Amino acid sequence: MDFFSSPLVHTLDLVGIFVFALSGALLAVRRNFDVFGLAVLAEVTGLGGGLFRDVVIGAVPPAAFTDLGYFLTPLVATVIVFFLHPVVERINKAVLVFDAAGLGLFCVAGTLKAHEFGLSLTASAVLGLATAAGGGVLRDVLANEVPSLLRWDREMYAVPAVVGATATALLIHWDRATPVAMAAAAVLAFVLRLLALRYNWRAPRAWNRRSATADES
Amino acid sequence: MDFFSSPLVHTLDLVGIFVFALSGALLAVRRNFDVFGLAVLAEVTGLGGGLFRDVVIGAVPPAAFTDLGYFLTPLVATVIVFFLHPVVERINKAVLVFDAAGLGLFCVAGTLKAHEFGLSLTASAVLGLATAAGGGVLRDVLANEVPSLLRWDREMYAVPAVVGATATALLIHWDRATPVAMAAAAVLAFVLRLLALRYNWRAPRAWNRRSATADES
Amino acid sequence: MDFFSSPLVHTLDLVGIFVFALSGALLAVRRNFDVFGLAVLAEVTGLGGGLFRDVVIGAVPPAAFTDLGYFLTPLVATVIVFFLHPVVERINKAVLVFDAAGLGLFCVAGTLKAHEFGLSLTASAVLGLATAAGGGVLRDVLANEVPSLLRWDREMYAVPAVVGATATALLIHWDRATPVAMAAAAVLAFVLRLLALRYNWRAPRAWNRRSATADES
Repeated sequence: MDFFSSPLVHTLDLVGIFVFALSGALLAVRRNFDVFGLAVLAEVTGLGGGLFRDVVIGAVPPAAFTDLGYFLTPLVATVIVFFLHPVVERINKAVLVFDAAGLGLFCVAGTLKAHEFGLSLTASAVLGLATAAGGGVLRDVLANEVPSLLRWDREMYAVPAVVGATATALLIHWDRATPVAMAAAAVLAFVLRLLALRYNWRAPRAWNRRSATADES
Repeated sequence: MDFFSSPLVHTLDLVGIFVFALSGALLAVRRNFDVFGLAVLAEVTGLGGGLFRDVVIGAVPPAAFTDLGYFLTPLVATVIVFFLHPVVERINKAVLVFDAAGLGLFCVAGTLKAHEFGLSLTASAVLGLATAAGGGVLRDVLANEVPSLLRWDREMYAVPAVVGATATALLIHWDRATPVAMAAAAVLAFVLRLLALRYNWRAPRAWNRRSATADES
Repeated sequence: MDFFSSPLVHTLDLVGIFVFALSGALLAVRRNFDVFGLAVLAEVTGLGGGLFRDVVIGAVPPAAFTDLGYFLTPLVATVIVFFLHPVVERINKAVLVFDAAGLGLFCVAGTLKAHEFGLSLTASAVLGLATAAGGGVLRDVLANEVPSLLRWDREMYAVPAVVGATATALLIHWDRATPVAMAAAAVLAFVLRLLALRYNWRAPRAWNRRSATADES
């Protein structure tokens, strides 16, 4: 997997962690946490998905603890949000675009890493999804909110990641996991997420669900 | 542990995962989650307890990621609940009976697997309990609810699992871990749980707790 | 690391687990959980931080499952709180002092253990913090509350742990990790926490945060 250990991909990895961390720190500001709460939510959001994947596949100590850049990147996001959060919130759309890029990259990279550790294609795709979405789920659990991943009233987040992870698994299966093909899978997930945001795509709720009895809080 | 790798036990295992997954998907419907939220809660509830046990004892990658049947079973439960949730809720009592069966099987199987990986009898029994109850706790945490395992106003769930896991540990200690004896331990936990449901058995709260000051939400 | 496997340190370790467990059981009483909920919150609060560290560094099965004393200590705390919780709440200040002692010991011991398992100094210090603060975070998540670690309106908890863990990492770096120096690092964290409690030290919120729009619940 030369491509995925290249400097370019490592940079993209850090960009993904950075934008995920921004979303964690911004939620911490909205919840009125202190500066340390900002840092914890930034670290958890940026690194949580990969940490979960690494613990499950037995890649310990996880990359989050062996690569200093992984640890420092969320702290940079914390400092920026600490001082400039009104600005960052105003450019929230830009953050969402970067977050979509992180989603695309992480679902592909997570699938590849799980497969390298000997997991089946299905399991690898599931862990690709977990890598991309896990940090956000941990962020919401720590902030005592219903994970936005699960909520009906949020734009689709999981579907693009599932598509990207599945495409990656199929490419491995067909022995076509070239750098270009992997990049295409990441871009596919990225574009799907952008389309979901642009057109408010939502996944359906249970069939025949009476919205009148909605008890979502 | 021939007995516990037999086709019969594997089938019972899948049944246990299936009914746990049903309870997760039903909670997701009640919380108004989208179809993907149903699938996530179903997977987490069905596989979470075993996943926690496997990570703790170092059995990585966990069975949840190496056995395709384990992954697909919660998806079947998701599809059923998606289309038929009013029916499933009406037969909620049947689901509770299956869930009790899953509880009985998982506390025995979890204890055995932990002991196979070299843990002490006490630690194995604790992990047996964690296998049986862990999925439900993760389900409630993700749905942003107080875990029903901990709540005073729910019928006893942990005590049957503790009894079943302890019985299994004692059988191992006495060198009597035969298939029949293991099955008896599972049935014991199963029956205790059914009795708790039938007669509304509840565990006591702290001694002298003034219910007037109850701040449970 | 002779010093940290000495009987004295093992005793201090159990004292730390005990007071952390007291805080978990007391929260369970306040939340009106049943006796089993008390035991679960006591175990999770007392052992959760070390369990997380051990899983991340690959020290499986974790110490929490190999040392019977670690498992039994939270149960003793549960029994005491079950019968005497009004008394324990009245001596809450004494509990906070012991909790500060546990904080000091755990941030040092956690950093040392992570470094023994080959992690870098930075990663070791982060895991020292996680060892000291992780149990409390898990306690609050299970009780469906915002972790007090993150909240602005609570006295600083993380900063003393960060200072103690960083001091330990620096001592290792300078090859000065003698028993006396380690003890001094633990006492430093302990005293900082006591001062934070005494003078209501709080970490700042995000710069320019309008408190009028506080949406903390």
